[in-house]
Amino acid sequence: MKKRIYNLLSVSKTPGDTSWWFDLFLIILISLNVIAIVIESVEPIRQKYEALFKGLELVSVIIFSIEYVLRIWTANEIKRFHRPITGNIRYALTPLAIVDLFAILPFYLPFIGLDLRVVRVMRLFRLFRLFKIARYVKALTVINNVFKERREELFIAIIFTFFLLLFTSTLMYYVEHEAQPESFASIPETMWWSIATLTTVGYGDIYPITALGKLLGGIIAVLGIGLFALPAGILASGFSEHLTKTNSKKDCCPHCGQELKRG
Amino acid sequence: MKKRIYNLLSVSKTPGDTSWWFDLFLIILISLNVIAIVIESVEPIRQKYEALFKGLELVSVIIFSIEYVLRIWTANEIKRFHRPITGNIRYALTPLAIVDLFAILPFYLPFIGLDLRVVRVMRLFRLFRLFKIARYVKALTVINNVFKERREELFIAIIFTFFLLLFTSTLMYYVEHEAQPESFASIPETMWWSIATLTTVGYGDIYPITALGKLLGGIIAVLGIGLFALPAGILASGFSEHLTKTNSKKDCCPHCGQELKRG
Amino acid sequence: MKKRIYNLLSVSKTPGDTSWWFDLFLIILISLNVIAIVIESVEPIRQKYEALFKGLELVSVIIFSIEYVLRIWTANEIKRFHRPITGNIRYALTPLAIVDLFAILPFYLPFIGLDLRVVRVMRLFRLFRLFKIARYVKALTVINNVFKERREELFIAIIFTFFLLLFTSTLMYYVEHEAQPESFASIPETMWWSIATLTTVGYGDIYPITALGKLLGGIIAVLGIGLFALPAGILASGFSEHLTKTNSKKDCCPHCGQELKRG
Amino acid sequence: MKKRIYNLLSVSKTPGDTSWWFDLFLIILISLNVIAIVIESVEPIRQKYEALFKGLELVSVIIFSIEYVLRIWTANEIKRFHRPITGNIRYALTPLAIVDLFAILPFYLPFIGLDLRVVRVMRLFRLFRLFKIARYVKALTVINNVFKERREELFIAIIFTFFLLLFTSTLMYYVEHEAQPESFASIPETMWWSIATLTTVGYGDIYPITALGKLLGGIIAVLGIGLFALPAGILASGFSEHLTKTNSKKDCCPHCGQELKRG
Repeated sequence: MKKRIYNLLSVSKTPGDTSWWFDLFLIILISLNVIAIVIESVEPIRQKYEALFKGLELVSVIIFSIEYVLRIWTANEIKRFHRPITGNIRYALTPLAIVDLFAILPFYLPFIGLDLRVVRVMRLFRLFRLFKIARYVKALTVINNVFKERREELFIAIIFTFFLLLFTSTLMYYVEHEAQPESFASIPETMWWSIATLTTVGYGDIYPITALGKLLGGIIAVLGIGLFALPAGILASGFSEHLTKTNSKKDCCPHCGQELKRG
Repeated sequence: MKKRIYNLLSVSKTPGDTSWWFDLFLIILISLNVIAIVIESVEPIRQKYEALFKGLELVSVIIFSIEYVLRIWTANEIKRFHRPITGNIRYALTPLAIVDLFAILPFYLPFIGLDLRVVRVMRLFRLFRLFKIARYVKALTVINNVFKERREELFIAIIFTFFLLLFTSTLMYYVEHEAQPESFASIPETMWWSIATLTTVGYGDIYPITALGKLLGGIIAVLGIGLFALPAGILASGFSEHLTKTNSKKDCCPHCGQELKRG
Repeated sequence: MKKRIYNLLSVSKTPGDTSWWFDLFLIILISLNVIAIVIESVEPIRQKYEALFKGLELVSVIIFSIEYVLRIWTANEIKRFHRPITGNIRYALTPLAIVDLFAILPFYLPFIGLDLRVVRVMRLFRLFRLFKIARYVKALTVINNVFKERREELFIAIIFTFFLLLFTSTLMYYVEHEAQPESFASIPETMWWSIATLTTVGYGDIYPITALGKLLGGIIAVLGIGLFALPAGILASGFSEHLTKTNSKKDCCPHCGQELKRG
Repeated sequence: MKKRIYNLLSVSKTPGDTSWWFDLFLIILISLNVIAIVIESVEPIRQKYEALFKGLELVSVIIFSIEYVLRIWTANEIKRFHRPITGNIRYALTPLAIVDLFAILPFYLPFIGLDLRVVRVMRLFRLFRLFKIARYVKALTVINNVFKERREELFIAIIFTFFLLLFTSTLMYYVEHEAQPESFASIPETMWWSIATLTTVGYGDIYPITALGKLLGGIIAVLGIGLFALPAGILASGFSEHLTKTNSKKDCCPHCGQELKRG
């Protein structure tokens, strides 16, 4: 019984069987929820179809709750979590299980008697339903793996990025604060300029106006962008390498046809 | 007869023969049409040379129509479409044949008695004349091939891009909606901010103003840009590899001069 | 005599000799001219030091004119241009010689009796003095070589870029023209939006406001940027390869130490 | 004694020993100082916690001063600086020692009797405390090494960047000055437009409005961005190569398992 439910819940590899139809059903339900979150935010649509949105919410939460409980219960079928109770608890702490929990949490919170303001913020947790789809989309697994592989480089690049941000913001604050006490009001607020400039977004809501500020801002833009683009470059090359690795062929010797080993 | 017309219509490989001159004539006609579409949109020019534009339109449609009919008729000369009628129909469904059809369609639609508003939208179909040139420009074939080769990576990257867009927009909507109910009116409208930020275009018509919105916007900008640049990176590297592949030389063994096989 | 002047004029390879000092003198003079062009554009500085700028201009033109005449005269010393008169004329048509001519031309034009308006436009030719320095700066030669090597790829990419520009502008014009007849007045003017968007500059002086325009603009931004970045990517990789090529070492066989040939 | 202090001050490799705790203490102190610089710039926070900030400043300067004196004194323990006095002076001129000095300098300057305006500018030197952390963060060393390795390429790219900036600014100034004498007031001020455009920041505070200016601006944007992105590309690839180099494995011959030498 437990094993059959586990097989039903886990991602099916043979299209057409019961588990596959169940996956499809969940994917459609998740998609409907995401679409609902998006179009519910359009005021006239929310008012017109309020009952429909509430109905979908209720049905979804019931199904997702049952799914969550069953997933926790059947977790023992996975080798890593085979121990009766500790296994279930440990499974409940995996990222995907936490996502499943957070996706239904905002519905139950008002019953516990939490402050209404907290509940309102908690509504944002419905966004976790978007992540439930990660189980079924291979693309997101690939991105996740790239992140893991390039962990070290990304860490270095992010530290450096933060350092650069701190440095350019402090410099610019001292230079431009007097001329524009509103826009460059403090170092944290100047960081908004630094980010907009170093990412080259450049909204245009804040920019230097003094000659020295423009000179410095220009130098920061020219030099800083190259440095700021490092994380992007690392991710792109990591992604590209990750995908080619699976398809790559091995070098062979022309004499014996043997594979050229790499020591 | 059919064969000679087919040879005339297909892209010539020997500069100077009749087919080559015919290609040139069509390229010039297509170019004239594209230029006409562009400069006709300038009001004073349209009013002054209205007759000229109408004349070019009439002549072009007649020539393109004859070309289209002949291409369909002579399609049997191509091996894949050698069967009398099914071959012609299957040829008519190839991308280039559809482009040829759509390029002349807007002219004939009013005669069928279609609603005038539909006809007006259909005028946009004249833009397909731009794509007729794809037959003659090798550069566009190269780009097309790169798209095909990197289909899988691009698919993953686009799904991920869409996911990122959905996530950042929903988050930003909840954070900034209250402070700017006009700009961040709904999640779909917040997507306009997400696209402008993640592509680093940053028009500056919409940006966060609250402290939390700026903090979140900054983090999204810094981290998101790297992820959003993936499709661009994949295309660029695919393009670069595609071009070097044709020119690449093979590794040879120093002993026998034999090519180093790749298993 | 001719040979000695030729040696004096050509770029010296042994620091410290007469030709080297002459090179340095010309580099300083060119730099002074470029600085003069830049700071002369600042109104208060121009008025204050007008005599100085005029003096520098006169002295520079005299020296550059003598340099130009001598370079043409001594061109026969270069093997390719050894024929008495045809060699000199052919040298005068090389890019660097044309730069030398254009750099002094605006000074002489008023004497020929040209229209004053033409002369004013011709003043822009003084900018060619900036290019005179190309003879001495190796960095510019490297860039020039990269352009030559990647000629074909760049040509494909530029054609494609132009195609993309034409297509997105026409589409956006039809979508947004009615809502913003001022900004999206015609297809050529919509190109300004396309360039600002596809290059991700995004000044914010022109952007879609209708829902359909924003949807289309968003799709264009996300997909188009990847394609538009191709020329940049080609140049960057070409530049990187060009520099590593010179420093690269050859593969050797571990048995005989022989170089691994590439067929 | 001297040796023990030197060991205490230098970066510890064995977590948990006295030197390691001392490193941690300094890292925390530096971080506190950086946080203080940042949040002190927020007016209400500065007024409320003025005493706290002054106290931290006093304690920090005392500790950093002692640290600086001890570092100079114990420099003889480093092999390169083993000579009694000249060694200490030469150590004092290394980048990290200068950073240490500048980080405490602004505190002592008023006592020497310097002009108050100079002292105020000197307060910016407190920013050097941010760089004191470089000693402990490996990520910054990696970036520093990449800069050194790619020195030559970066130099070429920066010269070229500057050349491009000069050229586009001068051209745009002549084209747009008459139509917008305020924004394109002089060539140096037009450089602000050039930087904003070539880096694709595009604040939107300055852009061409004439047809010729837009045409030229568009061409500059399309072509220039590719060239301007060179330094960024060089850094990114240098960074990527630097990190893979450490992890790279050597090619081996399939016959003998010997390493394939590179001549």
